[in-house]
Amino acid sequence: MTPNLILAPSLMCADLVNLESAVHQLEQLGFHTFHIDIIDGQFAPSMPLGLDTVARLRAITDADFDIHLMSVHNEFFIPELLKIGVQNITFHWESSLHVEHYLNLIHSQGVQAGIALNPATPVSVLNYVLDHIEKVTIMLINPGFAQDAAETRIPYALSKIQEMAQLIQQHHLTTQLQVDGRVSLDFIPQLIAAGANNLVLGNTGLFLKGKTLAESQQLLVQTITPALQHQEA
Amino acid sequence: MTPNLILAPSLMCADLVNLESAVHQLEQLGFHTFHIDIIDGQFAPSMPLGLDTVARLRAITDADFDIHLMSVHNEFFIPELLKIGVQNITFHWESSLHVEHYLNLIHSQGVQAGIALNPATPVSVLNYVLDHIEKVTIMLINPGFAQDAAETRIPYALSKIQEMAQLIQQHHLTTQLQVDGRVSLDFIPQLIAAGANNLVLGNTGLFLKGKTLAESQQLLVQTITPALQHQEA
Amino acid sequence: MTPNLILAPSLMCADLVNLESAVHQLEQLGFHTFHIDIIDGQFAPSMPLGLDTVARLRAITDADFDIHLMSVHNEFFIPELLKIGVQNITFHWESSLHVEHYLNLIHSQGVQAGIALNPATPVSVLNYVLDHIEKVTIMLINPGFAQDAAETRIPYALSKIQEMAQLIQQHHLTTQLQVDGRVSLDFIPQLIAAGANNLVLGNTGLFLKGKTLAESQQLLVQTITPALQHQEA
Amino acid sequence: MTPNLILAPSLMCADLVNLESAVHQLEQLGFHTFHIDIIDGQFAPSMPLGLDTVARLRAITDADFDIHLMSVHNEFFIPELLKIGVQNITFHWESSLHVEHYLNLIHSQGVQAGIALNPATPVSVLNYVLDHIEKVTIMLINPGFAQDAAETRIPYALSKIQEMAQLIQQHHLTTQLQVDGRVSLDFIPQLIAAGANNLVLGNTGLFLKGKTLAESQQLLVQTITPALQHQEA
Amino acid sequence: MTPNLILAPSLMCADLVNLESAVHQLEQLGFHTFHIDIIDGQFAPSMPLGLDTVARLRAITDADFDIHLMSVHNEFFIPELLKIGVQNITFHWESSLHVEHYLNLIHSQGVQAGIALNPATPVSVLNYVLDHIEKVTIMLINPGFAQDAAETRIPYALSKIQEMAQLIQQHHLTTQLQVDGRVSLDFIPQLIAAGANNLVLGNTGLFLKGKTLAESQQLLVQTITPALQHQEA
Amino acid sequence: MTPNLILAPSLMCADLVNLESAVHQLEQLGFHTFHIDIIDGQFAPSMPLGLDTVARLRAITDADFDIHLMSVHNEFFIPELLKIGVQNITFHWESSLHVEHYLNLIHSQGVQAGIALNPATPVSVLNYVLDHIEKVTIMLINPGFAQDAAETRIPYALSKIQEMAQLIQQHHLTTQLQVDGRVSLDFIPQLIAAGANNLVLGNTGLFLKGKTLAESQQLLVQTITPALQHQEA
Repeated sequence: MTPNLILAPSLMCADLVNLESAVHQLEQLGFHTFHIDIIDGQFAPSMPLGLDTVARLRAITDADFDIHLMSVHNEFFIPELLKIGVQNITFHWESSLHVEHYLNLIHSQGVQAGIALNPATPVSVLNYVLDHIEKVTIMLINPGFAQDAAETRIPYALSKIQEMAQLIQQHHLTTQLQVDGRVSLDFIPQLIAAGANNLVLGNTGLFLKGKTLAESQQLLVQTITPALQHQEA
Repeated sequence: MTPNLILAPSLMCADLVNLESAVHQLEQLGFHTFHIDIIDGQFAPSMPLGLDTVARLRAITDADFDIHLMSVHNEFFIPELLKIGVQNITFHWESSLHVEHYLNLIHSQGVQAGIALNPATPVSVLNYVLDHIEKVTIMLINPGFAQDAAETRIPYALSKIQEMAQLIQQHHLTTQLQVDGRVSLDFIPQLIAAGANNLVLGNTGLFLKGKTLAESQQLLVQTITPALQHQEA
Repeated sequence: MTPNLILAPSLMCADLVNLESAVHQLEQLGFHTFHIDIIDGQFAPSMPLGLDTVARLRAITDADFDIHLMSVHNEFFIPELLKIGVQNITFHWESSLHVEHYLNLIHSQGVQAGIALNPATPVSVLNYVLDHIEKVTIMLINPGFAQDAAETRIPYALSKIQEMAQLIQQHHLTTQLQVDGRVSLDFIPQLIAAGANNLVLGNTGLFLKGKTLAESQQLLVQTITPALQHQEA
Repeated sequence: MTPNLILAPSLMCADLVNLESAVHQLEQLGFHTFHIDIIDGQFAPSMPLGLDTVARLRAITDADFDIHLMSVHNEFFIPELLKIGVQNITFHWESSLHVEHYLNLIHSQGVQAGIALNPATPVSVLNYVLDHIEKVTIMLINPGFAQDAAETRIPYALSKIQEMAQLIQQHHLTTQLQVDGRVSLDFIPQLIAAGANNLVLGNTGLFLKGKTLAESQQLLVQTITPALQHQEA
Repeated sequence: MTPNLILAPSLMCADLVNLESAVHQLEQLGFHTFHIDIIDGQFAPSMPLGLDTVARLRAITDADFDIHLMSVHNEFFIPELLKIGVQNITFHWESSLHVEHYLNLIHSQGVQAGIALNPATPVSVLNYVLDHIEKVTIMLINPGFAQDAAETRIPYALSKIQEMAQLIQQHHLTTQLQVDGRVSLDFIPQLIAAGANNLVLGNTGLFLKGKTLAESQQLLVQTITPALQHQEA
Repeated sequence: MTPNLILAPSLMCADLVNLESAVHQLEQLGFHTFHIDIIDGQFAPSMPLGLDTVARLRAITDADFDIHLMSVHNEFFIPELLKIGVQNITFHWESSLHVEHYLNLIHSQGVQAGIALNPATPVSVLNYVLDHIEKVTIMLINPGFAQDAAETRIPYALSKIQEMAQLIQQHHLTTQLQVDGRVSLDFIPQLIAAGANNLVLGNTGLFLKGKTLAESQQLLVQTITPALQHQEA
């Protein structure tokens, strides 16, 4: 769709009882990366999607699966996800005793690895591992609390993204900088300007109420195009 | 379909990326109770389906949802399931510190409650609560290990069902006696003869490989009808 | 007050900001055993009283402290309570991996030990240890949920007490049979008739709304006396 | 009492069996903020005070309740404390998976939020959230180990306070800088000089052995006044 | 050594820095089953031996390894022990959520399985699985507390063994009935008379202070022979 | 052996069934510090050595025991190790809620304390405690995964050591800088050059396949001597 920018629709927001058609519709609109939230009910009070659903999805599409794992049992979930066959597993720094071990597990299967940071977590925790991961995910709301209306976007969203982008630049890396949580159409230009190049699209970015996916996607393109042009300029 | 016998297709075995059509097909075949396994990845190494999927299912059917909760955090899952709106919540004795409290929670919303027993758990643990639950689920394999081929049906399946059926009779109750795990066509007559009156139908009972659901259902009816007649005789 | 019957006011229901005068008032009314609930917030969603409060209470009265420990960390709480100096520690079967070890710990300090059973727990679990404990506590509501109005007394209260009383008699023991949870004035005669000889007195048994403690105690005596006479007859 | 400086007597050190009179005496001496330690026995081997005691305290005073929550289950305790009605909830960074979520919970009820740091925790962890909290608590001893005589004040107390004070200044904030743990009369001038403006007063700061509260308070004022004058100069 | 009776020296009591010679000495004395306690420090406050030590032992002897697993993480330890190559794995009922699953795991490798019962645990919990295990272990002291001098043998040792022996007989089984904990020379005749046929030999049964292993073994034979003759008579 | 450099053979790699002779052989070769890994099976999937083995080792040598504790229950293991009598206890930052408390515990017995950092953990976490510990351990592989062949040395080993060495220098300290994990002969010169002065010697540093310990030690000396000379120059 747009070069240099990954747009990852969050399947949690798609029609969960008609996933096959939802996925194919998204593919026809040009999306080839799907963001899938795996939450275990213990990391956060939420368990939206199951592993068997992911395995079934795997059978009907060749799109990239970008897994956002929110779990306190990475030792169980990472191998399960690798067995299913996904393209990226992003786990949380905050619930990871053996960060490097998880990276080894993921990379040993030729899969890309990412690390997600909760809102309050400083980017400096990534000091040593930044050179060895393919993606960083900056959470703009508390992960796993998306359906809690009281949860608003963190006020330091842009400054944290900028800080992360600078760190990536200082390390001379091309690590993807993903943002997740209330990535809304009106905020996307600022997110891109701050340095985000991978957007998780949920209810405010793509699955807009009262609009078809095609209509929403058009609005998204209208939002993104000037933002990218501005950036290149 | 058949009086006195509840047949509960397990949605975990349905097509997870086309649940709406799967559910409607099952309804057209006469099923009006759906068994849904909620496993948290910690009670057992499995997390087939998510809560958001159940919530979405709720919107497309009026059928009864019979939830089999396999979790070490009943305090979280029971209220979530009640919010979604289900007809039965069956939790495990083995992971329940406050059995009566969970029953209270469920009953206070006018929902039916069941207790599931792992293979090795004696039926005598239900002594006090049997009079106050609507369903007992006897696990014929280790719950949450359905996809592990090494897991075979427990050798004492029939004797345990008989023991449970006697206990229910001794208490002058009409509690449903559900069996779950490898409830296969060839074994169903024996299960019914032993006292089971609620069958969870999975890959060996209804979702048979190489057959349509309609074909499978016909086989099922052929199996059940004489079994029930024999019982009535 | 009454021979053969222990009446244990629950200090959780006394005035928690004036415990010294509350305790002395209770002593003047003839009570010399105080029931104290220690809940850790994890066994049940409640943490009414702290250990430092118990230690301070210890300094102002020689009355017996009857501790009802509702905790998932008995290894920590039992030694702490022994250090404070209490007369009975009753822990829960359901959260005890090493029942005999806890009994050893308690008895080694010359302190009486009790085991509390959640509503749904069969009395048969006490088979081996019954001969070696000084008290059994039958919970009539879910422990730690006293303030939850939806929690009603278990319907099998009396039959469970009778069963427990028979077991004690069969073992030729004089083990105290304590009942706890909604032990209300109107229900006490039935509890005594069923075999209870140790009553935990809370908001419905002694700390009655709109009455002084002296008035409540008089009502209590009026209730208990005929019940005991009836029993002796 | 003194402008610009909050003096918070720790109720754990007051007479726990006569809290009503203790609280009123403290109010008469001019204190209007009470520091209350809530420890769950798992974060640290201590459980001084219970929640019901706090609720009872709430009914007898309008003073500010400054809660220091030392728990591994913030999800349970924060809502309970909000229900009681407190003015500040300070939780620990080290036991908080969802720092921002807890801040949202607290702020959504119009209550002030603080974050406490264990001795060894770097102040840099507060990078993003500092602008959004009302108080930081620097622990000068290990939290929950106050009664362990072997626990001495950390040698880097003053330098850590200075570092924290600078961070607050750099962010142009008025965040309260609270110090807790062995805040003794002789050390208070140095604490104030280093930047502390909220003192938790325990056994060495206010509840002095062999002195009345009034005498102790006079000593405290004598200590604080020159310290504050020196600071203003 | 003696037919119909298994004598299993506990390697925890052998010289842990000279295990090779200890093992060979025991073999020369006729022992061909070694009891090895694996405790994880969490089931009980003890961690005597490590897995690497067991693996090294495996390389130097063909004797049977009879593993007594005292762990809250059977899911980890059982597969590790199977990899090493042992002849029996006995795990605890009390820390086993999926008893049948562990039995399946063990049996699938052609290894014998046992279940150990804590002192207070009723034998009736084995109702369903008794027919499918090769050994039952009755603990005569609290498992993992062997080095705690305050831990004495349970007073109901003999009656519990008798009850277990009867159950085995009623089921027409040849299940081994192992006893563990303070199995001392003077008590062995009574243990055998009660029905035990597998003795774990520790500091009071074989590794006697002030005696060589050969001397101790002779005492053991002197104790056992009449006991067995008495039984056969 | 060599001044200014501590060489600590890892006893996990010695012959675990002949530890007495192994230890004496190492002592004769000039080693007087032994590194002992205590892993609880939960911090990492490994439990190589037990506490009783360490206690037995204590009785046969006066060498220094340098304990590397990999546990999620430091509260249990640190006191146990202190009772045995060791010279250094190094615990992990990542599994330590109360870092300062553990340091107090260790120092109060006159024992040296160290903190170990997982590969991904920034050295800045030691900011406050660095002045108060005797050793820092930089893990070059994931701790507890030594036997996992897929685990390779972290690519940032040398830069992290340099960073740590600089921090130690900036604080004007003589803290030992230990490195652990795949400390191989060919890499040792670079490790020393980067600032390491305490080497944990395992299968690639001392216990070389196909060589006697004496031969290996000679290779080690040949490797170390020029490295140290180069450093002094």
